[in-house]
Amino acid sequence: MSNLTMEKLTALCKGRGFIFAGSEIYGGLANTWDYGPLGCELISNVKKAWWQKFVTEPENNYGVDCAILMNSSVWEASGHIGGFSDPLMDCKECKTRHRADQLAEDFIRRKKLDTNLTGWTDLQLSGFISEKAIPCPVCGKSNFTAIKKFNLMFKTFQGVTEDSANIVYMRPETAQGIFVNFQNIQRTTRAKIPFGVGQVGKCFRNEITPGNFIFRTREFEQMEMEFFCKPGTDLEWFEYWKSYCRDWLYGLGIKQENLRLRDHAKEELSHYSKATTDFEFLFPFGWGELWGIADRTDYDLTCHQTKSGKSMEYTDPVTNEKYVPYCVEPSLGVGRMALALLSNAYEEEIVDGETRVVLKLHPFIAPYKAAILPLQKNPELIEKAERLYKQLSKKFNCTFDGAGSIGKRYRRQDEIGTPYCITIDFDTLTDGAATVRDRDNMTQVRLPLDKIAEYVLKSLEY
Amino acid sequence: MSNLTMEKLTALCKGRGFIFAGSEIYGGLANTWDYGPLGCELISNVKKAWWQKFVTEPENNYGVDCAILMNSSVWEASGHIGGFSDPLMDCKECKTRHRADQLAEDFIRRKKLDTNLTGWTDLQLSGFISEKAIPCPVCGKSNFTAIKKFNLMFKTFQGVTEDSANIVYMRPETAQGIFVNFQNIQRTTRAKIPFGVGQVGKCFRNEITPGNFIFRTREFEQMEMEFFCKPGTDLEWFEYWKSYCRDWLYGLGIKQENLRLRDHAKEELSHYSKATTDFEFLFPFGWGELWGIADRTDYDLTCHQTKSGKSMEYTDPVTNEKYVPYCVEPSLGVGRMALALLSNAYEEEIVDGETRVVLKLHPFIAPYKAAILPLQKNPELIEKAERLYKQLSKKFNCTFDGAGSIGKRYRRQDEIGTPYCITIDFDTLTDGAATVRDRDNMTQVRLPLDKIAEYVLKSLEY
Repeated sequence: MSNLTMEKLTALCKGRGFIFAGSEIYGGLANTWDYGPLGCELISNVKKAWWQKFVTEPENNYGVDCAILMNSSVWEASGHIGGFSDPLMDCKECKTRHRADQLAEDFIRRKKLDTNLTGWTDLQLSGFISEKAIPCPVCGKSNFTAIKKFNLMFKTFQGVTEDSANIVYMRPETAQGIFVNFQNIQRTTRAKIPFGVGQVGKCFRNEITPGNFIFRTREFEQMEMEFFCKPGTDLEWFEYWKSYCRDWLYGLGIKQENLRLRDHAKEELSHYSKATTDFEFLFPFGWGELWGIADRTDYDLTCHQTKSGKSMEYTDPVTNEKYVPYCVEPSLGVGRMALALLSNAYEEEIVDGETRVVLKLHPFIAPYKAAILPLQKNPELIEKAERLYKQLSKKFNCTFDGAGSIGKRYRRQDEIGTPYCITIDFDTLTDGAATVRDRDNMTQVRLPLDKIAEYVLKSLEY
Repeated sequence: MSNLTMEKLTALCKGRGFIFAGSEIYGGLANTWDYGPLGCELISNVKKAWWQKFVTEPENNYGVDCAILMNSSVWEASGHIGGFSDPLMDCKECKTRHRADQLAEDFIRRKKLDTNLTGWTDLQLSGFISEKAIPCPVCGKSNFTAIKKFNLMFKTFQGVTEDSANIVYMRPETAQGIFVNFQNIQRTTRAKIPFGVGQVGKCFRNEITPGNFIFRTREFEQMEMEFFCKPGTDLEWFEYWKSYCRDWLYGLGIKQENLRLRDHAKEELSHYSKATTDFEFLFPFGWGELWGIADRTDYDLTCHQTKSGKSMEYTDPVTNEKYVPYCVEPSLGVGRMALALLSNAYEEEIVDGETRVVLKLHPFIAPYKAAILPLQKNPELIEKAERLYKQLSKKFNCTFDGAGSIGKRYRRQDEIGTPYCITIDFDTLTDGAATVRDRDNMTQVRLPLDKIAEYVLKSLEY
């Protein structure tokens, strides 16, 4: 990905049908994005890969799929109504609105200061801004209002009137759906601690400054797992899931040099967290957070127990001991993971004096596993190719491409990450075999048609 | 499903972990539902089955995954801001609010009248209500206001102020994401007409009267396909997809006696539709709409062309003819499909003088494909069983159950629709085989451990 810029990646995504600007024909809508024919397969594969390793395979893990709209008491209990907010300031001169922490951070970066904002109060923050006379990025003057807190949850109204009794929020995270169902899940699965519960779904945060393509969007999809364990065993499980997550990323081809783990310092930790590690990825715009893993202790379950009056205790079936479980949470965004995989896979190579763009995606993640290419527009070849398409598409996603020279078709498939190109040629009519060309090393093997499915399926394992 | 009532089905769903009331510990939130460990696998299988047959297998079909939040111009163009509303009346006596069409329909049903409301204006509707003195279901008096239109879209505010410039709507259907991306999709796939575009995703409608469990909910998930074709060929394709959809339902085990197709009469058709057929399913509460298939003509693309000023024309690559394509839309709700499959699969049988409850779900749809049961709590048996679990769970979703008598464990699996129970017994330690018991006919076969995966996978085909 040496030469990769965000501009190049965005252009490839738009040009080849991975990702389009949302509502594009109407000038878009802030930073919303639509996943096109290739992108929707890519993110679907990301979610399948996660579900397989975090829900299906671990014997004691389960999944849920909860509603986006939840009772507002959930967000009162979790602290989102009280505390989930950005510190905003208005410029008194030009009436534009800004995030105070970002004004300060940008200034520190620009002036190469040694100041660390971690743990600062709003008062400290606004003091710093006025003391340094940090200018408004729009008008250049430095004359701001005090900091106002702006809640990041999207709100809407359910029912036929818009009074406050009908306010509901669009969930800003999937985790709370798991917490409020803790007893339902434990009761129906009869799971014994430790066990995990995973969920994949859309979330919404009214960010003031979304950006960097699909890195930070207001509407996004999370893959979260809450792993419930006995208090005292939590730090062990924290380490276990940290390794497990890292291995999963490596298994999908994330390069070691693109990944670093950053443990939060004590003063950086949320008040409820005993330990947090950020997985950072080297995106084309620089290092950015990919995955957060946190030891959330019994914070959430206890909050819900207090607010709802319903017990969140678990009874150990052997010792009869009762306790509110601790919980370790790896939380990953689908869009960020897709962006990391695309950046990680992008390569430019010189082949026969020309630049070959290739997405070296793991076959499990690649939108198409195979392209079926009849060598020429010959009815017999096309019929053979279509029959192969029918057979293979029952097992995995394939594409059919009958137009252009074989070389051009190979390049088209390289650019969208298709691991195998299967060419049906005139020999196929007599030997019942086809040429299977490998995306990464461009070597070819000749395989009987009825062995191809197995060959491709084998490559999907990880 | 002869004996099945909604109460029974809801209790089974809650008791076994298919579906919980949303935000239950806080008294719920209107008609929201959370899919538990079994339910989330079930609906995920429903979506996979749909995607496989409507997107992956057809050579000329593609998928997209668009944002829920779209530019408001989309809804102006589609007519949702102007016309997507329910006719509401307030009772002047007790101040409750009602849907006028439902007041009238309930009255007609109760009185067994022959009146058909299809195509009635609001004026006709309110005239009928006052003429018949239809009573308020809450206070029993008949004294209503005039009909007011209530828009069904949920609205929210994006950005930091709540003025009208920042209003955005949560999409009430997935279809518009496909229409506004028509040119993006065609350009990047180089698809030739006819071709289809499918999408699965959450939608929101602020229904006044959600109900019947997961049949009608404000938040729901759609599986929609728009099949673009040449004007004049649309009715042919309409028939094609009607058969295709019906065959898909039969393929997943929907019984003929539970399904009926109802063609809309001319006066019932939307102004833009040339033909519409409702697939109706016999739910425990009676016949209800499961699937709507409509010939939407060029209505949507033309609306967007007019509003956005961007051409929605397609150029035939052979004849160079230009036209706005016509479009056939099969539109199915995930929740409704899940409810139909559960109702369809539910059976009670008398076995050895006791009632056996069994969900005869198609193996592709069943949450677990296999249950792995060590006969006794013997370390060697458990180790063998866990090894088998590890191996099989890489290929499909399995459950492990080591507690209780084998008979009880069979019944538990029957009730949640697990097609195969695999018992590891003492013979397994010497013959390397296990007993595989079939859910539907309760017969058993003995299979070598390394043949079981293939045996189960074979049953998933449809």
